[in-house]
Amino acid sequence: MKLVLLSGGSGKRLWPLSNDSRSKQFLRLLDRGDGVLESMVQRVWRQLKNVGLAEFAYVATGKVQREMIRSHLGEEVSIIVEPERRDTFPAIALASVYLYSIERMSSDETVAVLPVDPYVEESFFLQVKRLDPVLRRSGADLALIGIRPLFPSEKYGYIVPFGKSLEGRNPFTVESASDYFSVSHFREKPKAEEAQKLIDAGALWNAGVFAFTLGTMIRWLAERSYPLQYEELVKQYERLPNISFDYEVVEKTDRIVVLPYEGAWKDLGTWNTLTEEMGSPILGKGVISEDSKNSRIVNELDLPVAVLGVSDVVVAASPDGILVTSKEASPRVKELMKDHVQMPMYEERRWGWYRILDYTHFEDGQEVLTKRIAIHEGKYITYQIHFKRSETWTVIRGEGELAMEGEIRTVQAGEVIQIPPGTPHGIRALTEMELIEVQQGKELIEEDIMRIYSTWDEVVQALVKDESKQVE
Amino acid sequence: MKLVLLSGGSGKRLWPLSNDSRSKQFLRLLDRGDGVLESMVQRVWRQLKNVGLAEFAYVATGKVQREMIRSHLGEEVSIIVEPERRDTFPAIALASVYLYSIERMSSDETVAVLPVDPYVEESFFLQVKRLDPVLRRSGADLALIGIRPLFPSEKYGYIVPFGKSLEGRNPFTVESASDYFSVSHFREKPKAEEAQKLIDAGALWNAGVFAFTLGTMIRWLAERSYPLQYEELVKQYERLPNISFDYEVVEKTDRIVVLPYEGAWKDLGTWNTLTEEMGSPILGKGVISEDSKNSRIVNELDLPVAVLGVSDVVVAASPDGILVTSKEASPRVKELMKDHVQMPMYEERRWGWYRILDYTHFEDGQEVLTKRIAIHEGKYITYQIHFKRSETWTVIRGEGELAMEGEIRTVQAGEVIQIPPGTPHGIRALTEMELIEVQQGKELIEEDIMRIYSTWDEVVQALVKDESKQVE
Repeated sequence: MKLVLLSGGSGKRLWPLSNDSRSKQFLRLLDRGDGVLESMVQRVWRQLKNVGLAEFAYVATGKVQREMIRSHLGEEVSIIVEPERRDTFPAIALASVYLYSIERMSSDETVAVLPVDPYVEESFFLQVKRLDPVLRRSGADLALIGIRPLFPSEKYGYIVPFGKSLEGRNPFTVESASDYFSVSHFREKPKAEEAQKLIDAGALWNAGVFAFTLGTMIRWLAERSYPLQYEELVKQYERLPNISFDYEVVEKTDRIVVLPYEGAWKDLGTWNTLTEEMGSPILGKGVISEDSKNSRIVNELDLPVAVLGVSDVVVAASPDGILVTSKEASPRVKELMKDHVQMPMYEERRWGWYRILDYTHFEDGQEVLTKRIAIHEGKYITYQIHFKRSETWTVIRGEGELAMEGEIRTVQAGEVIQIPPGTPHGIRALTEMELIEVQQGKELIEEDIMRIYSTWDEVVQALVKDESKQVE
Repeated sequence: MKLVLLSGGSGKRLWPLSNDSRSKQFLRLLDRGDGVLESMVQRVWRQLKNVGLAEFAYVATGKVQREMIRSHLGEEVSIIVEPERRDTFPAIALASVYLYSIERMSSDETVAVLPVDPYVEESFFLQVKRLDPVLRRSGADLALIGIRPLFPSEKYGYIVPFGKSLEGRNPFTVESASDYFSVSHFREKPKAEEAQKLIDAGALWNAGVFAFTLGTMIRWLAERSYPLQYEELVKQYERLPNISFDYEVVEKTDRIVVLPYEGAWKDLGTWNTLTEEMGSPILGKGVISEDSKNSRIVNELDLPVAVLGVSDVVVAASPDGILVTSKEASPRVKELMKDHVQMPMYEERRWGWYRILDYTHFEDGQEVLTKRIAIHEGKYITYQIHFKRSETWTVIRGEGELAMEGEIRTVQAGEVIQIPPGTPHGIRALTEMELIEVQQGKELIEEDIMRIYSTWDEVVQALVKDESKQVE
């Protein structure tokens, strides 16, 4: 059995902490139990490890999130890269073709696809594990996970089992955790009254988990003449219908079974739900007056946040902005900020992170961007050239190897490196290392970069060769 | 007639915008009428100019505020420097002795002392001007301004006129603006019921304005054996009772008159009152959702502030911190933040301003402080040495003269200057100039500074002399 975790989302619903490069699943806000904070994706990965599933898991995601995934889950995680972010049908089709044509997996292999960030108990993943035998025993084309509904929600999708096959049994009076049910049909976001009737008839919330054998999916794609080679499908990726797997596949499939899950399942996608799962009312620097009841602070800035005489609010502050919202109104933040475009002020990268300290566009067109950059021990920013900007690096912590103008030398805290436009440069941290970088130029954009080598080994080889040439 | 404006206050009531170096009177939040924002002290100065009093005014203040005063009011303003911030009695005594012994003013001169930041109409200062003839005509020792009370406030002091001398007249049925009244007594912060009775009897709010002839005050001080020479009083300043002028002088004086003022008079010392006088609900970057009624944003940061579904709040953000307060609770901010000590993140200086972008104290004791520094055209940071820190300056705007290690040379945007510990350095802006400064050391404190020369002329002279020496 293989797992495919879908990691998407552009994340304006948790603005200002989430942004285009940091979707909600990457926010390190959840208490792991030992006081250390973890992200939603880290929590899921930890749970998968505990039930022995992590080693069989792939993360399917776009280029933008690739470095974040590695930064959160480590270098060893297997990633299936999507050429662009699209809906769940193209993502699952691509992942299946990847497992089939690149990993050359057997058609008989069970593949379970799930969101990267369900907020659930560990037993949820035990049920995911049971989808493999359930699929085989039932002979169904698809096996799903159904959540025991807690109330007649109007927000979720419902999986309705066959009345007949239930023979009056409610899915939660089942004898064992591996008892499954045949699915009659689905109902998306019903009104509360209808939802209650569905619940009374044994319907379950759809958890967005889909299990199938690789052969079933490949046959489905082949019948519709989709390419079955990964490289080819990547090329044609934008031609796939941008539609959910539910609509494109599930609703057109006859033999579907559902396995119930009885534990907690929460949508932590908005500030009111997320802050309920925070261990403490204040994350980061802050103070809340005694008469401010049930208010929360999530503060990633160095500045203190004070809440005085205001109840039931969430104050979220990050280098991207400051949100003050009533808990009730917090789901509307995406709407309020929909026209707000800005460069992300904090980004995690494979090699470390950076934070923008200051940005100015002077009247004469000159731009200045000041960043604090951290490079983890052993990691590097590869040999590259900027054409439109100069950079000044003041090393403020640690020690590293600087590659510049065909030479490699050691630099350490206190040293200053000036990099004029057009000068090749790269740096590798020998210890944890930090820099203050001042960029100056007429057009400070990420795209003004020419990478000369992609690994540090190549840099070392090339520069050492260069040197020997000069000696001759 | 001379005016003395008392500028004090340490300003936690308007945290995070006010701090120890930027009291509330220096916040540039008031709409001047043409869209330009001005501070309370600038507003008063503009009003004093309009009524022809500015040229006769002195500002009495502590060392800390001296540079802020010049930055707000210009270089030409006359400042009487107090060796430390104390209450109004010592401040007024020192100012009087300064006018007497340094400015050698006549004993006959009228001196009117007033707070630097009353939020009033221009006619208030016309009344201040009339205190001179009122004092002469009445033969009183002190002449005050009384505000027509709008409601029985429990927060203010009341000036109670003699019932007899009023002969049944209410101070506001006077025939001309220069009609004054003899004062019977004072009442501080009465309960509302008593306040109403006082108002019915013609009492006025005390505006904190005191006019006297210089001779009267000098005689008063001489009788109590206080030094009458400024330098001597400065030396003994800490021995003066730290008490208000009201308690020490006014309450012990018999012949006092009061001149009524009928216009608006507001205390803008808390966020709820101050934000009422803002032209727009949002100052700086921000957005307020439509369902957030009567909320205000005052944002000095580069980040946007969003208020969603929260009514009647003030969000104030500055490099010192972020406050979210209900309007009602806002007077309690001083109390909430009383134990909060921090270095001011933004300071205005005579030569320009600086803003702290980043500060870190690493585990090994090493500290790093990154600042953005602006130096106004023609201004300079004088020749100085730091012993415990290095500095890296990346010039990001404009052009200046750098004095370093005995040499003066021109530097401009794009250049980087490294200043190791123990290296004398100074800089003068030839145009508006900005730097990013990275300080590194074991103890980054303001006191680690040895100023070698105090003016740029001295620097030029000394370094040119040095150079000629070297040439010989």
